[in-house]
Amino acid sequence: MAATRSPTLRPIHWRNGKVTLIDQTRLPHEEVWLELSDYPSVVAAIREMRVRGAPAIGIAGAYAMALAAREAAQSHPTAPSRWLEAAAVEIRAARPTAVNLAWAVDRMLAVARATADADIPSALADEAVAIHEADEAANRRMSSYGAELLPRDGAVLTHCNTGALATGGYGTALGVIRTAWDDGRIKKVFVTETRPRLQGARLTAWELADAGIDATLIADSAAGQLMARGLVDAVVVGADRIAANGDVANKIGTYSLAVLAKESGLPFYVAAPTSTIDLSLASGDLIPIETRAPEELTHLGGQRVAALGVEVANPAFDVTPHRYVTAIVTEAGVAESPYEPALRGMSGVAGA
Amino acid sequence: MAATRSPTLRPIHWRNGKVTLIDQTRLPHEEVWLELSDYPSVVAAIREMRVRGAPAIGIAGAYAMALAAREAAQSHPTAPSRWLEAAAVEIRAARPTAVNLAWAVDRMLAVARATADADIPSALADEAVAIHEADEAANRRMSSYGAELLPRDGAVLTHCNTGALATGGYGTALGVIRTAWDDGRIKKVFVTETRPRLQGARLTAWELADAGIDATLIADSAAGQLMARGLVDAVVVGADRIAANGDVANKIGTYSLAVLAKESGLPFYVAAPTSTIDLSLASGDLIPIETRAPEELTHLGGQRVAALGVEVANPAFDVTPHRYVTAIVTEAGVAESPYEPALRGMSGVAGA
Repeated sequence: MAATRSPTLRPIHWRNGKVTLIDQTRLPHEEVWLELSDYPSVVAAIREMRVRGAPAIGIAGAYAMALAAREAAQSHPTAPSRWLEAAAVEIRAARPTAVNLAWAVDRMLAVARATADADIPSALADEAVAIHEADEAANRRMSSYGAELLPRDGAVLTHCNTGALATGGYGTALGVIRTAWDDGRIKKVFVTETRPRLQGARLTAWELADAGIDATLIADSAAGQLMARGLVDAVVVGADRIAANGDVANKIGTYSLAVLAKESGLPFYVAAPTSTIDLSLASGDLIPIETRAPEELTHLGGQRVAALGVEVANPAFDVTPHRYVTAIVTEAGVAESPYEPALRGMSGVAGA
Repeated sequence: MAATRSPTLRPIHWRNGKVTLIDQTRLPHEEVWLELSDYPSVVAAIREMRVRGAPAIGIAGAYAMALAAREAAQSHPTAPSRWLEAAAVEIRAARPTAVNLAWAVDRMLAVARATADADIPSALADEAVAIHEADEAANRRMSSYGAELLPRDGAVLTHCNTGALATGGYGTALGVIRTAWDDGRIKKVFVTETRPRLQGARLTAWELADAGIDATLIADSAAGQLMARGLVDAVVVGADRIAANGDVANKIGTYSLAVLAKESGLPFYVAAPTSTIDLSLASGDLIPIETRAPEELTHLGGQRVAALGVEVANPAFDVTPHRYVTAIVTEAGVAESPYEPALRGMSGVAGA
């Protein structure tokens, strides 16, 4: 069983009524754990990407709701639900692209609405823990499904960080890779550095090295040539939101990798929990794409590197049309084109 | 005339028997000029990328040969030619991919072999200056040819630095863009930051801002999505070596941009002087690709950012098969597929 072979970091914990999370902006050089006892601190941690990765920010959002429920009961006892609804708006808006955040907040709100005021704090704490545990279990299931898709003795390329750090534990695309490695199925992993925030170099490389997986770091722009030269056998990435038609929003550069994989005749897999599927959006064109600060490109380590006077476009995500996607792997199984009925079926099964 | 409208920096000069060049590793924040009086210093400057860009390192190599000829006459008067031939081997090996360096060294050697020993130093100084002046003139001619290819009122995307800094002056792909901007033909330029050495963010952005051209900096991995969203009308890049069949070696990431341009139905142009054409190589598979230090990816500003324990693959260049190239623009005109006869004709015309 994969679960017994690969103990992995859990980047976020609920302990003594507080959220404890590892500050991912300080990794890999410092392991700093933040203890957050109110929901605005969690919102700030999400915004500042101290916690990041679509599933992980969903879980953080759920815990933020649990904290907000307690704050509502303590500080606003006359109308705790109204106050909680207001907090939910704020939590949901912390980052726009990953639907997991809105999904988790909505699920927490639904529990709150079905619960008597006095019981809301404990009900929401329980629900957040349930969301967290379900995410880790979902990762392990999708990883088993996904590992079987990977070419035997192959080299796999991944982008950004989709490991234990990005999730409730274990990982989505990186979970697939981890399971495939543990099964002896793949022999090498290429990881893009993932500009501008270097999640590949800092986080994925750290997780892969820690797991003893043969990992090679490359510039984002080197991926295409590696594929053209036959050094890559498959690409596996995560997702921040999947539209009903199978279009995938994910870290900027994902679309390029998908096109390049197609050009080299390589399979391109997306691994994500069903909480990432947004059936309310017909296509990826409707997914809101977060734009981040220009300084992510103009500065390195606090020092300006870019010439003065240049404008910056810094979208954090892009959309990969479903026609480039070989399969979408979730905890409910493997979806292939046509995606819409498959994704609808999965969401139903998983109760998303 | 473009020549009268756009005074540009010359990154390299021959003054009082010395090579003066701007240290491109310090730009854009410091303008440090290095005065080099012996050829090993020029070789070191090329290796360390203080001077970079295929045409510029060809010119630097020519000046290095002029310095070596003087050193040979002064220090090795009994066999200056043999000593010069040995220096030529060293100069030519400073960097492997750009053929302009070997081309310039061979041209200098041919002059030396046809000249009496006593006259070699002055003959080689004259030849190096001639190579330099011809390069700048070639840039201006190719820029006029190339500008006419660009879509009217379009947005152009470029990669790395191919401007005045990369050449004897004015630029190749960036010269095309500059002329097109001066002609009022294009309205916007996107420039990739160009990891790992950030020539786009540091150098191209600096040249574009200095010229008052509307420039937007993007992560390398954002280029594909910009194309897919219809925000780019053409891609123009330079080249480090062009094989006889039209395959193009250029900065890592060029291949990806070419595939993405094709996917979006956009023209993909290469601008380079005929000194970049290597008719001795049948295809791009034979072009030697330089691998640079892992620290270019693992460190930023002297600080390690990548996790320990990860391997690194850091090819500095890639090869774009000719089928992705819409046209190759040189000072001798515009070549289209089939490239081999066109390139052979151009090399003949230009006397390369």
